[in-house]
Amino acid sequence: MTLPRAIDINADAGESFGRWTLGDDAALFEYVTTTNIACGYHAGDPATMRIALATARDAGIAVGAHPGYPDLLGFGRRALPATHEDVVDYILYQVGALNAIAATEGVTLTHVKPHGALMGRISRTTELAVDVAGQLQALQPGLPLMFAPTAALSAAEAHGLPVIRENAADLDFDDDGINIVEPRPAAKDPQLVADRAVQMAHGSVTTASGAVIAMPVESICIHGDRPNAVAVAAAVRARLHAAGFTVAPHHFTPAATS
Amino acid sequence: MTLPRAIDINADAGESFGRWTLGDDAALFEYVTTTNIACGYHAGDPATMRIALATARDAGIAVGAHPGYPDLLGFGRRALPATHEDVVDYILYQVGALNAIAATEGVTLTHVKPHGALMGRISRTTELAVDVAGQLQALQPGLPLMFAPTAALSAAEAHGLPVIRENAADLDFDDDGINIVEPRPAAKDPQLVADRAVQMAHGSVTTASGAVIAMPVESICIHGDRPNAVAVAAAVRARLHAAGFTVAPHHFTPAATS
Amino acid sequence: MTLPRAIDINADAGESFGRWTLGDDAALFEYVTTTNIACGYHAGDPATMRIALATARDAGIAVGAHPGYPDLLGFGRRALPATHEDVVDYILYQVGALNAIAATEGVTLTHVKPHGALMGRISRTTELAVDVAGQLQALQPGLPLMFAPTAALSAAEAHGLPVIRENAADLDFDDDGINIVEPRPAAKDPQLVADRAVQMAHGSVTTASGAVIAMPVESICIHGDRPNAVAVAAAVRARLHAAGFTVAPHHFTPAATS
Amino acid sequence: MTLPRAIDINADAGESFGRWTLGDDAALFEYVTTTNIACGYHAGDPATMRIALATARDAGIAVGAHPGYPDLLGFGRRALPATHEDVVDYILYQVGALNAIAATEGVTLTHVKPHGALMGRISRTTELAVDVAGQLQALQPGLPLMFAPTAALSAAEAHGLPVIRENAADLDFDDDGINIVEPRPAAKDPQLVADRAVQMAHGSVTTASGAVIAMPVESICIHGDRPNAVAVAAAVRARLHAAGFTVAPHHFTPAATS
Repeated sequence: MTLPRAIDINADAGESFGRWTLGDDAALFEYVTTTNIACGYHAGDPATMRIALATARDAGIAVGAHPGYPDLLGFGRRALPATHEDVVDYILYQVGALNAIAATEGVTLTHVKPHGALMGRISRTTELAVDVAGQLQALQPGLPLMFAPTAALSAAEAHGLPVIRENAADLDFDDDGINIVEPRPAAKDPQLVADRAVQMAHGSVTTASGAVIAMPVESICIHGDRPNAVAVAAAVRARLHAAGFTVAPHHFTPAATS
Repeated sequence: MTLPRAIDINADAGESFGRWTLGDDAALFEYVTTTNIACGYHAGDPATMRIALATARDAGIAVGAHPGYPDLLGFGRRALPATHEDVVDYILYQVGALNAIAATEGVTLTHVKPHGALMGRISRTTELAVDVAGQLQALQPGLPLMFAPTAALSAAEAHGLPVIRENAADLDFDDDGINIVEPRPAAKDPQLVADRAVQMAHGSVTTASGAVIAMPVESICIHGDRPNAVAVAAAVRARLHAAGFTVAPHHFTPAATS
Repeated sequence: MTLPRAIDINADAGESFGRWTLGDDAALFEYVTTTNIACGYHAGDPATMRIALATARDAGIAVGAHPGYPDLLGFGRRALPATHEDVVDYILYQVGALNAIAATEGVTLTHVKPHGALMGRISRTTELAVDVAGQLQALQPGLPLMFAPTAALSAAEAHGLPVIRENAADLDFDDDGINIVEPRPAAKDPQLVADRAVQMAHGSVTTASGAVIAMPVESICIHGDRPNAVAVAAAVRARLHAAGFTVAPHHFTPAATS
Repeated sequence: MTLPRAIDINADAGESFGRWTLGDDAALFEYVTTTNIACGYHAGDPATMRIALATARDAGIAVGAHPGYPDLLGFGRRALPATHEDVVDYILYQVGALNAIAATEGVTLTHVKPHGALMGRISRTTELAVDVAGQLQALQPGLPLMFAPTAALSAAEAHGLPVIRENAADLDFDDDGINIVEPRPAAKDPQLVADRAVQMAHGSVTTASGAVIAMPVESICIHGDRPNAVAVAAAVRARLHAAGFTVAPHHFTPAATS
């Protein structure tokens, strides 16, 4: 008999900004096992970050940083052609900012997941993925970079760097296995997303062009800013359970300090 | 025979932003023993922060964070009436951001010094000073808050929190012993600033109203964005030496981890 | 027999920003006769401004600019201590920005109404109110400044400058006759707001301290970002009708060009 | 005998921001005949805009708007993939903002010149160039769009829209006749820039690849943020004079109002 394979469900959270609210983090946290908190560049502000951190901690889920491009107006969904060096520093800045507030809430970050157009760039750019994953180790040894299972991810892993393979079940895929970012998320049929989540949990996905490609993910993303995000998350979780998967966060192992 | 008393000279740095440069950090670092690096809210950006960190490390001086109000347009010199909670989170956000980039440069932060109007507020607001100094301990045990020697500072100290007494020799003082922020720094006579620095190193200062008040500082600030900042720093250092002081950074003692 | 007195109902609109939406402008425009559109400093962005302009034009209501302090994070509700000169320029910048997009939508601005903490400052500061009202004439002769009926407004009027007396019926009043800004608007009982609107239309209002003061307004504001803003606006309009008032925009008379 | 051909020299100005200064506008205005003032998105702020407007007016030179991408951190030199609609609105917003402050200074705008990466995009994108040039007419009939002499410019002209052909003599050219933006301007040999300016005034230019292409410009740009910008401008002006050109602003003809 084979044990059920474990799979993580992650959702972006903390995407409000000042007067503006977005998503229903507390409701979403009942269905997901991991959350990625915006860090102020594409969404989020210090007060929003603190609330999201405390809410996630109280819900007992894993918490990571969700850095994006510095583009509030475009919500980090526009591919700003920043230099390699700038991208690395933008990520460190944001992860560090969240880490400090997390420390005061008794939360240890479990991962870093790039947002929006920055996710696309890192997933497609080996040198950048390796550099980012490496520099995160200086801040917190063992902290994994969570992104699409691509050649870039394999390269980071080959360098001995901690990574988590993930992709979103509520977005279409291009033939490189990278999500196609929507300008503005619309409601999606929860069952269709759940179909894709189960397909992904089994290790493959059907792309926008109709091809079936390998998609060996350890975590499946549901976007928290979709109008029916909570219903989608509930459907995905129920269907993964029904398909025999254990839904649980990726196991985070802090590196031993020498 | 009495040993010469030690005194620290600190200067703000990393106050460029994107295309715009401000100050000559490398030249200034030859004369000061401690620097406070802007963290992106009133000045500074991730690339500027990294350069300032590396330059300070290579100069062998102590490096702290210099958080300000979120007001690039006003350079943090306008007293934004943010809530107590917002101010605490603004500071943690910025200190954490600098801390992450510092980690990748092999730099451990030695202190946190509020900037501009935020310095005035914390120096005048006991509850805020105590809360900020306390929450910093969650990020890095032993990390001191550097600000004006006021009732607020004494209260933080009475709570067992690490603090460093400092004030600027190149600004006037009000009768509360708090610097009067200039809208835009002008050149100042280096010898007059040096006069005041020596007076402060001996524990007192003459205020704008002509009163002489106690000013028991461990660190004297020279503002790096003054047009003749380097000349001022050189004069202050030379005069402190001549007056028998040892110019050295405040001793930073990381708390023992239990 | 006396003809029914005319009264205007105005509401702020265009207060979304990028990915974040706020208020239901189209629904609100069925009940109000004038709208004030955010201009990018406290809320609003160019695309949002264009949508709000076109929606208001299609609804047949009067359209003005709603400039605020440059504080997206605080939604313009924090009293930034900017200089007199900076405040004037912030307002011109924002009004001009809206004016250009309005021109391409065939909309002529009917007024300028300051937002949030900036409204409080202008209503309390005679020199500033007179200067702002005066400089607007260079952009569009005859363009009125809409604000609280205060000594500052009377002074602007005494200088021959166009003004519109207004105040919000869904906020409390201090004894200077200036609205007390909420950090974050909550739902309010529509009938209680309507009571106050009718009282204001008759020329007086009861302040937070219980005093009844003169409140000679030509326009009554309903805040569009209140959760039940549409219900509040509907109640106010119905009750003003029932009390015999004609609800109509303030008459805008472009100055004759010499 | 042939009359000397007229040529305009334009320079970007008003590129300071808050505490940070950039360029020496007053010195530059002695040598150029037209200036383009930053409008707050890539550089500039309301106070800086006012100073630049007044300085240019007092120097007797033509004044236009210089809108850029909303990217202070990147100084508008990064090609943000904003939508067509967003770009149009970003430009109108900025031009309107400058126009309002200009009105209070008695200045009428003579043109609009896109900045940095936005200039590249408009020069390469016919539909966008035509739409922008067209919508500007709603704000100020006859207001020309100043950009590179490209197919996009010819298309705008074919639509009967006012345009000014320009390009920079202090930047290299690609084979499409569009300037290659530097990440950060360095000092350049004034005589080499002047050589190219004279070549351009005669209607051609040598590209980075060594090709000589037609470059029929009416205005030659000198970037104001180059360290030796004033020396470069002086050399260009002297050499154009020596080559028999009359240096004068492009003639601006406001459209007759019907």
